[in-house]
Amino acid sequence: MPFVKIEITREGVTREQKQTLIKGVTDLLTSTLNKDPHLTHVVIQEVDLDDWGYAGEQVSVLREKGITADKK
Amino acid sequence: MPFVKIEITREGVTREQKQTLIKGVTDLLTSTLNKDPHLTHVVIQEVDLDDWGYAGEQVSVLREKGITADKK
Amino acid sequence: MPFVKIEITREGVTREQKQTLIKGVTDLLTSTLNKDPHLTHVVIQEVDLDDWGYAGEQVSVLREKGITADKK
Amino acid sequence: MPFVKIEITREGVTREQKQTLIKGVTDLLTSTLNKDPHLTHVVIQEVDLDDWGYAGEQVSVLREKGITADKK
Amino acid sequence: MPFVKIEITREGVTREQKQTLIKGVTDLLTSTLNKDPHLTHVVIQEVDLDDWGYAGEQVSVLREKGITADKK
Amino acid sequence: MPFVKIEITREGVTREQKQTLIKGVTDLLTSTLNKDPHLTHVVIQEVDLDDWGYAGEQVSVLREKGITADKK
Repeated sequence: MPFVKIEITREGVTREQKQTLIKGVTDLLTSTLNKDPHLTHVVIQEVDLDDWGYAGEQVSVLREKGITADKK
Repeated sequence: MPFVKIEITREGVTREQKQTLIKGVTDLLTSTLNKDPHLTHVVIQEVDLDDWGYAGEQVSVLREKGITADKK
Repeated sequence: MPFVKIEITREGVTREQKQTLIKGVTDLLTSTLNKDPHLTHVVIQEVDLDDWGYAGEQVSVLREKGITADKK
Repeated sequence: MPFVKIEITREGVTREQKQTLIKGVTDLLTSTLNKDPHLTHVVIQEVDLDDWGYAGEQVSVLREKGITADKK
Repeated sequence: MPFVKIEITREGVTREQKQTLIKGVTDLLTSTLNKDPHLTHVVIQEVDLDDWGYAGEQVSVLREKGITADKK
Repeated sequence: MPFVKIEITREGVTREQKQTLIKGVTDLLTSTLNKDPHLTHVVIQEVDLDDWGYAGEQVSVLREKGITADKK
């Protein structure tokens, strides 16, 4: 009975990327814990950049400063 | 001090249905646990069909295939 | 595809009361939105009294003062 | 490693007020628990008035009756 | 800035399995969305069987009846 | 109607520190948004170190390596 919530900033995530996340998390729960996929729900919640704060600053401000969340 | 979050897919839930859910959950907490309704908050969160995954698939895809969440 | 989280203070809720909450919420989702119970998950999360704050005070302190969450 | 979620009704909260909340919560976690702000995330989630229930009523209905959440 | 919450029933998940879930989800977010792992937090929340309801029944009751969440 | 959830690692947070967090967040919501404290709930959720992952590693492992979340 897994329920997974993925919260990410709203920055152009595509439908295909969402499907990849959903499939990936569901498969991970099956391969690691042998969970039946029919009992696994995954919810993606996109958060506006004004609504996510990191290190005391809105992400919208960080992005204006050129600071991204990209892997280097 | 109950707080209840109801997450459902966004599929045309009406204002009246939301009120029914809020009233029903609040009453259930009062009748079962004797909770003061003035300390009970209920939040309904609708999730877009692309953002909810079930059995490894986006619900939007499941709906395109004619698979619903309706009680048979 | 509903997922419901009920957060309540940990104050002696019994197994039977939990079952009543689970059954009640599941039935409410079926009667209001026609949701298949096999797609409905309900999670109850009990919170220690030191960990729940109301009106700026820990509930453990409120209880010591004789303030309850009971319906009058 | 703190993660903080602030759920509030959607009633005209400004970008500046959101920034005040984010900064305030982050500073509070640093001053109280000595947490590194670079490990602190704060998410604000605004909830439509039809989707928040209090005392068994939708907040949209309470507002129509002139009942606010303002401090007196 | 991803934050992921994995809610599962408390049924003997080992420390190694938790590490596999954390590593797997973090890698998935990097490979799919190019997210910096240093901005990715994953929280696993185990839920007692009396506190998780499925199809209107406590999972503890379902397990007593021999119904598992295992993939067939 | 604010509801705030603070998720932190379980690392010896005292009852007094929790009260400071609850009071601080409640006051912040009053001073910033003029919210009535009697409509503000704050929940603190402590997470075991094996259950919180950061940068793909369990925090329990990070702590064994001497990596803390302390502000430098």
